[in-house]
Amino acid sequence: MLETFKRIRKQSVGLCQSLKIEDLVMQLSEEVRSPKWHLGHTTWYFEKYLLTNYIENYKPYHPLFEYTFRDTPKTIFAQDQEIQESASNRPTLENVLQYRKYVELHMSGLILEYAEDKHFKHILNEAIHHELKHQELMMTNLKTIMASNPLLPEYSEMIPTWEKRANYDIKWIEVPEGVYQIGHQSDDFSYDNETGVHKTFLHAYRIQDRLVTNREYLEFMADDGYKREDLWLKDGWSWVTKYKVKAPLYWLKMHDKWKYYTMYGLRNIDLDLPVTHISFYEAEAFARWKGLRLPSEFEWEVACQLHTPSCPSNTNFLDHKRFIPVGENGHAHFWGDAWEWTNSAFLAYPFKENKELTSTENPSRQLGNKIVLRGGSCLTPKSHIRLTYRNYSFPEKRWIFNGIRLAESM
Amino acid sequence: MLETFKRIRKQSVGLCQSLKIEDLVMQLSEEVRSPKWHLGHTTWYFEKYLLTNYIENYKPYHPLFEYTFRDTPKTIFAQDQEIQESASNRPTLENVLQYRKYVELHMSGLILEYAEDKHFKHILNEAIHHELKHQELMMTNLKTIMASNPLLPEYSEMIPTWEKRANYDIKWIEVPEGVYQIGHQSDDFSYDNETGVHKTFLHAYRIQDRLVTNREYLEFMADDGYKREDLWLKDGWSWVTKYKVKAPLYWLKMHDKWKYYTMYGLRNIDLDLPVTHISFYEAEAFARWKGLRLPSEFEWEVACQLHTPSCPSNTNFLDHKRFIPVGENGHAHFWGDAWEWTNSAFLAYPFKENKELTSTENPSRQLGNKIVLRGGSCLTPKSHIRLTYRNYSFPEKRWIFNGIRLAESM
Amino acid sequence: MLETFKRIRKQSVGLCQSLKIEDLVMQLSEEVRSPKWHLGHTTWYFEKYLLTNYIENYKPYHPLFEYTFRDTPKTIFAQDQEIQESASNRPTLENVLQYRKYVELHMSGLILEYAEDKHFKHILNEAIHHELKHQELMMTNLKTIMASNPLLPEYSEMIPTWEKRANYDIKWIEVPEGVYQIGHQSDDFSYDNETGVHKTFLHAYRIQDRLVTNREYLEFMADDGYKREDLWLKDGWSWVTKYKVKAPLYWLKMHDKWKYYTMYGLRNIDLDLPVTHISFYEAEAFARWKGLRLPSEFEWEVACQLHTPSCPSNTNFLDHKRFIPVGENGHAHFWGDAWEWTNSAFLAYPFKENKELTSTENPSRQLGNKIVLRGGSCLTPKSHIRLTYRNYSFPEKRWIFNGIRLAESM
Amino acid sequence: MLETFKRIRKQSVGLCQSLKIEDLVMQLSEEVRSPKWHLGHTTWYFEKYLLTNYIENYKPYHPLFEYTFRDTPKTIFAQDQEIQESASNRPTLENVLQYRKYVELHMSGLILEYAEDKHFKHILNEAIHHELKHQELMMTNLKTIMASNPLLPEYSEMIPTWEKRANYDIKWIEVPEGVYQIGHQSDDFSYDNETGVHKTFLHAYRIQDRLVTNREYLEFMADDGYKREDLWLKDGWSWVTKYKVKAPLYWLKMHDKWKYYTMYGLRNIDLDLPVTHISFYEAEAFARWKGLRLPSEFEWEVACQLHTPSCPSNTNFLDHKRFIPVGENGHAHFWGDAWEWTNSAFLAYPFKENKELTSTENPSRQLGNKIVLRGGSCLTPKSHIRLTYRNYSFPEKRWIFNGIRLAESM
Repeated sequence: MLETFKRIRKQSVGLCQSLKIEDLVMQLSEEVRSPKWHLGHTTWYFEKYLLTNYIENYKPYHPLFEYTFRDTPKTIFAQDQEIQESASNRPTLENVLQYRKYVELHMSGLILEYAEDKHFKHILNEAIHHELKHQELMMTNLKTIMASNPLLPEYSEMIPTWEKRANYDIKWIEVPEGVYQIGHQSDDFSYDNETGVHKTFLHAYRIQDRLVTNREYLEFMADDGYKREDLWLKDGWSWVTKYKVKAPLYWLKMHDKWKYYTMYGLRNIDLDLPVTHISFYEAEAFARWKGLRLPSEFEWEVACQLHTPSCPSNTNFLDHKRFIPVGENGHAHFWGDAWEWTNSAFLAYPFKENKELTSTENPSRQLGNKIVLRGGSCLTPKSHIRLTYRNYSFPEKRWIFNGIRLAESM
Repeated sequence: MLETFKRIRKQSVGLCQSLKIEDLVMQLSEEVRSPKWHLGHTTWYFEKYLLTNYIENYKPYHPLFEYTFRDTPKTIFAQDQEIQESASNRPTLENVLQYRKYVELHMSGLILEYAEDKHFKHILNEAIHHELKHQELMMTNLKTIMASNPLLPEYSEMIPTWEKRANYDIKWIEVPEGVYQIGHQSDDFSYDNETGVHKTFLHAYRIQDRLVTNREYLEFMADDGYKREDLWLKDGWSWVTKYKVKAPLYWLKMHDKWKYYTMYGLRNIDLDLPVTHISFYEAEAFARWKGLRLPSEFEWEVACQLHTPSCPSNTNFLDHKRFIPVGENGHAHFWGDAWEWTNSAFLAYPFKENKELTSTENPSRQLGNKIVLRGGSCLTPKSHIRLTYRNYSFPEKRWIFNGIRLAESM
Repeated sequence: MLETFKRIRKQSVGLCQSLKIEDLVMQLSEEVRSPKWHLGHTTWYFEKYLLTNYIENYKPYHPLFEYTFRDTPKTIFAQDQEIQESASNRPTLENVLQYRKYVELHMSGLILEYAEDKHFKHILNEAIHHELKHQELMMTNLKTIMASNPLLPEYSEMIPTWEKRANYDIKWIEVPEGVYQIGHQSDDFSYDNETGVHKTFLHAYRIQDRLVTNREYLEFMADDGYKREDLWLKDGWSWVTKYKVKAPLYWLKMHDKWKYYTMYGLRNIDLDLPVTHISFYEAEAFARWKGLRLPSEFEWEVACQLHTPSCPSNTNFLDHKRFIPVGENGHAHFWGDAWEWTNSAFLAYPFKENKELTSTENPSRQLGNKIVLRGGSCLTPKSHIRLTYRNYSFPEKRWIFNGIRLAESM
Repeated sequence: MLETFKRIRKQSVGLCQSLKIEDLVMQLSEEVRSPKWHLGHTTWYFEKYLLTNYIENYKPYHPLFEYTFRDTPKTIFAQDQEIQESASNRPTLENVLQYRKYVELHMSGLILEYAEDKHFKHILNEAIHHELKHQELMMTNLKTIMASNPLLPEYSEMIPTWEKRANYDIKWIEVPEGVYQIGHQSDDFSYDNETGVHKTFLHAYRIQDRLVTNREYLEFMADDGYKREDLWLKDGWSWVTKYKVKAPLYWLKMHDKWKYYTMYGLRNIDLDLPVTHISFYEAEAFARWKGLRLPSEFEWEVACQLHTPSCPSNTNFLDHKRFIPVGENGHAHFWGDAWEWTNSAFLAYPFKENKELTSTENPSRQLGNKIVLRGGSCLTPKSHIRLTYRNYSFPEKRWIFNGIRLAESM
C-alpha cells in the first residue's frame, strides 16, 4: 500500500517533468485549471480526509491551503469591477512541491501504522483514486493550455511509435435478449455510483468491436454532416450553429487540409486512429448518419463483460505515456485509447437514488443531466479504470479524449 | 374530425378572450413568446404540413409568415450593435386572427374531402396535437408575462372554487419486481418517442398516491433545505448559489409571509395544494431530505397502469379553466394538476435510437440531457394527454407546473 | 401658455396616430422604450413637479405610476433566473391615454391660476420642454422598433416631397481668431448646461456651410474607409472590428446596392441628402480621411451666431412631419435635418462645474464622457431648439439622426 | 544616449527582481497583462521601429514575436467554445530575457553608429519613453495581479520610511482671468498630443496646493457619499449602483475598519496620505460634496507653470521605489505621488485634430471620450514626466494611482 501510494504520488510530479514553471501555473478558467493546482489539490485531499482525522493535533502545512486547494479560490477584491479573476501565481510551484513532501512524510508513517485498519484503507484508496482521476484531469487541462498558447508548444518532442494494426475491419459482437446484472460486485475499490448491483432487461443488440476512425469521421464531414439539421438533436443543432462547429476540438484547417493539435504539436491527421475530442452531439449525429446508434451504458457493460472482461496488459493507458490514442488494440476490446460516449444519462442506480451526498468530492454529486462515458482513455491511469467505471460529461464538452463506438438493435 | 378541429381552434382563441392586445404581443425571450405568436405558429403548422401538400397551387396567406411563424424571426439589422432584438409588434393581432380564419376555411374543406385518407388523418392529428401542446405553452408563457409586469395584473379576477378534499393522508402503492412492458401500444395518436414498445426490468418499489404539498415544502424550506449543500446535486447546488434560489418560482416573501403569483393575482399560499413551479434539482433535493427518491419514468408508468389506467373524468385539466392545481383528485391517481418530475433522462426508447429527425417540430428532436415529466397539469388540454405521454424539460426550468411524487425501493 | 401646453400635448399623441397598439407597447431595451412609456413618462413629469406641489392633497391617477413611469420598472420576480425582463404590457394604452387626460384636466386649471407666477412658469416650461425632448426620443425609439420588426413595416406610406436644392457646392465660413462669448444669455428658457455664459479663445478656423452627403460618405466606404486602421481612433477601431461595422445604421446591402430603412420603409439611398445615423467615430474617421476635422462645439456656436443666428422658418424639424433629412436648407445654415457631431466632450461650462444635481431628469446629470451634438434634427420639435442647445451622446450611438459638418484650422 | 538606453532597460528588469516566475507570467485580462509581456513588448518596439529599419537584413529574434508582443495574441482555436482565452505561458521568461539581450546588443551598436542622426534620435527617444510608460503600466498591472491572489502576497516586505510633513493645511493658489498659452514648446521630447501650442482663455480661479487625503475621503464616505444620488453624474451613479462601489479600489473593511492593499501587503490606511485608486466619478462626486470642483487640464497646467514649473528633485516617482504616495511634498507642488483627475476630456489640441494616426502605439490614438490626468504618480519614472504631459483614462478605471486636487471659480 505504501509503495502504491509513493508510486502514484511520484507519477503525478513525473508527468510535469518536461514542463516549465510558466506552463504549470496557467489557469484558463474554472474548468481548465493549472497543473500546479492539481498537484496541490490532490495533496490537500490526503490532509483533509486522513491526516487531520488520524493524527492528533495535526498541523496543516499552511492555514490557507484548505481554502486555496479545496476549490478555485475567489479574489478578496472580487466585488470590484477592476478585479474579476483570481490570480493563480501563488503559492509558487516550489512551495507546492514542499507541501507535497510534507504531506507524504506524514502519510508514510500513517500508512504503516494503520496497515490493518479497514476503514483507513478504504479512505486511503479513495484518496489514491482521487489523485489518479486528477492525473487525467491535469493532462487534459494541460493539453488545452498548450493548445491555447499561440506558439503551440509541444508537451514532448518525440512522438512515440507502436506497431500498426494490420486488420481494421469491423466485427460485430451480438448479445441476445435477457435480464442482465449491472454494477460493481467485488470487494475491490469502486465509486459508489457503480455499486447498487441490479438487474436490467436488454433487448437483443449488436455492437462494433472498434471505435470510429478519423477516416470515417472525415467522410461524415465531407457529406455535410455539420450542415444537415436533420442529423442533429435540437440542442446539438443549437450548439453547432451557435459556435459554428465544423470539426472536432483541436482540429485546424490549413491550406485545405485538416490537421490536429496533439501533445507533439500540430500534426497531420492519422486516418486509421480513433476520432476523439468530439461531443456527445457529434457522436450521436454521426451514428444517425450511419443508420446506427450509440449503445446504452448497460449494453456497453454487458458486451464488455462477455467479450473482454479483464483489461489486456498492453492497453493504451496513461502509464504508457503516449498521450494519444493508438488504435493498436481498438479491435476486439473496450479498454483505453478513448472514452466512449453512451446514450445513457448519468443517473443513480436502483437502491442508490437517495444516497447522502456528504463529501463534495464524491462523483455521485455529479449525477443528473450528464452523459455516461465508458472504457478509459490514453490519459487514464491503468489502475484507475474498471469494467463498471462510469465517467460523465456534459454533452457539449470535448476536452477529454471522447470517441464513438456504434451499436444497433437486432 | 372537423368538429374536433373547430373546437380546438376555437379554444386557442378563447383562452385569450379576457386579455388585452398589449398582453398578447409581449415576447420576453426566445423561450417566453407572445400568445400572438402561438396563435400564428399553430396556424402556420396546418399551412405547412397539410394545405401546401394537399391543395394544388395553394397560396399561403402571406409570403413571409413561413419565416415569421416557423421560428422566432431575427431582425434584419441584427449585425448592428444598436439593434439586437427582434420586435414582435407585427403582424398585428387582427392580422393573425384573419390568418387563422383563412387557414380554417381551407382546412374545413380539406377535412371533409380527405375524411377517409389514413395518412391525411394522421398528419391532421399531429397538427391538432401540436396546437393542443401550444395551448399549454401559451398559457405557461402568459403566466410568466403577467408576472413580469410590475403591476401584477390578473388573468382573471374570479378564482374558481371546488370541493375541498377531506382526507389527505398518503397511501403507498406497492409494485413487485418483474419485467414490465413500456410504451404506447394502441392505434390512437401518440408521439413516436412514446412508441418503441419494449420490456424493462423493475426491482420492487413503492410510490406515493399524491403529490407533495406546499405545507410539506415549507417544512423543507424551514429546515434550511436551500442552504444545505449535502442535499443537492452539484449542478443543483451551483444553480441555487448562482441564482440565490430560496423558494419556488413565483413565490414572494411579504412581511415575513410567503405568497405566490397565480392567474388570479398574488395570493396566500394554500398549504393543502401540491407544490409547483419547482425545478428537478429542488424536487430531487426535497426527496433526499425526506429519505426518499423520485420514481423513474418506467416506475411511474407501471404504477399508473396498475392503479389508474384511464383518466378520471373530473381531473383538473385546461378544459376546466381553473389554471391552478386543486389537489381535489390528487390522491388515488396520477393525472392532471401538475407535471411530475421523474429521475429519468429524456432518451430514445429501444428500437428508436436512430430515428430520422425530419420535422423540426417533432418532440424526438428534444431527446438528450433533459428530464422526463409525466401526468399532465392544470394547463394541459385533456385530449392531449395519455398514460404513456412523455414531457421533458431542462432540470432547472420551472415555468410549467412541475410537482413532486415520491417513491422508494423496497 | 395654456395653448402651448395643449398644443404640445396633442402633438405627442398625434405622432402615434398612424400606429397600432402593437407598435406602441414594444420595449426593446432600457434605451429603446415603448412609445406608450414616453406618453406616460411625460405625463408623470407634470404630476411630479407641478400637480403634487401646487394642488393641496392632489390625488395621483394611480399609486404605482410614479414607479412605472419614473424609470424603467423592474419585475418583482427579477431575482428568478426565469424572469429577467420586465413586461411592458400594462398599463394598457387606453389607460395611459386616460392618465394623460386626467393630468391635462388638472394642469389646465393650474396654468390659469398661476399664470403670473414666475417660478411656476419656469417649471412648466421645463415640463413642456421635457415633453418636446421626449417627442424626439419617442420617434427615435419608434424608428428602431419598426426597423427591428422582420416585416419592416412603414410608419407612413407616403414619402413627402420637397423642392430639390439646385446648388450643392460647399462654401466655407471663415472665423477670425479672438475671444468669444459662449452660452445662453436671454431670459428665455434654456437648460442650465447652456448657461454659465463665459468667454473662450478660438484660433482662426473655417467651417463648411452644409453637411456631408450620402454620396461623399459612399466614396469614403468605397475607399476602404472602414478597413483602414490608420483613419480611426483606437476606441473607434475596437468598435468597428468588434461589431463588424460596414455602413451607417439602418443601411442594408441588397444585390450589391446599398439601401436604407426610413420611416417610409426600405428605400434607395438619396445621394444628395446628408448622411445620418453615424457614430462619432465614423464622423471623426471620415473627417480625417478628408484631411479635415470636426468643429468644437464653441466653433460651431460662434459660426452659427455669425452666420444664421436665428432659425429660418422653413427649417426641417419634427413639425413638418417629414421624419427624414431633406437637405433643402442644408446650405447656408446650421439648423435642423441632423444633429451635428462636434469634437467636444459634454462637460460643465465654467461657473457651473459644482452645480447640485437634485433632479434626476436634469440633462446636467449626463455630463462626463459623452460627445456634444448641435443644431437639431428632422425629429426635433422646432420650439425645443436654440442656438446654444447642447445635445449629447455616447460616441458609438447612432439611433438619433447624427450627421457631419467639417471644419479646419486656418 | 547609450547610457540612458542601458539604464532604462536595466530598470525594467530590475523592477521584477523580487518576483517569482509565477508572478511574472500571470495575465488577468487584456488590460491586466503579465509583466513578462511588458518586458517583451517594450523590446519588440525597438525591433519594429529601429532595428528592422536601420539594419539591413536584420533577422528578428523570433518570427512570431511580432505577433506575440505587438498585442495580446489570440489563441488559434478561438472559434471553439472550449478554448476562449489565450494562455500566456510561452515564450518562457528565460526566453524573453534572452530576447531582451539580443535586441540590446544590436541596439547598442546602432546607437553609437547613428549618434548624430536627428531622426534616429527622435525615434529612439520615442522607444525609450515607450518603455518608461510601460514601466508604470507593468507595476500597475502587477499590483492588480498581487491583489488578485487570495494569499495577498507582498511585492516587498519592507515598507520604506520618509520624513513626515509637519504642516498639512491647504493653501489656495489664485490665477487671474486671461488668455494663456498651453502645450509643449521646447525641443525636448514630448508626445504630439501635448504639442499644438495654442492659446486658451481662462476665467479667474483658485486651486488647492495639495491632494485630498484619505482622512477627508473617509469623511465623504461617512457622510453617505456613496449613497446620495444627488452627488453623482448619471453614469457615475449607474457605475456605483451596478458594481455596488463603497470605497476606493483595493480597500477592504475588516472588523469595521478600512484597510488597503499596498505593495507591502494589507495595511492600515494612513489618514494623512493622498487618497488614490479612485475613479473620475468618485473624484467628481467628492468635489461636489465639498462645494468645489475639479480643475480643467488647462487650469492645472497654468497653475503648475506659475507655481512649480520644474519638478523638485525629491519628488516621489518610481525611481525612489516607494510604490506608494508619501504626501511628503504634496503641499506646494503638482508633481508625483498620484495622477490628478481633471474635468477635461482627452481631445486633440487645436491644429492637431486631423493628425494622421499611423503608429498603433501613438497615444494620440487614445483621443476621444477619456478623461485627462496630470502630474505623474509614485509609479511614474521621473524622466518620463513633463509639465505638459497628458495622461488619460476611462472615467471608471481605478488601476493607476489617481487622486484629487480641488479648485473653484472666483
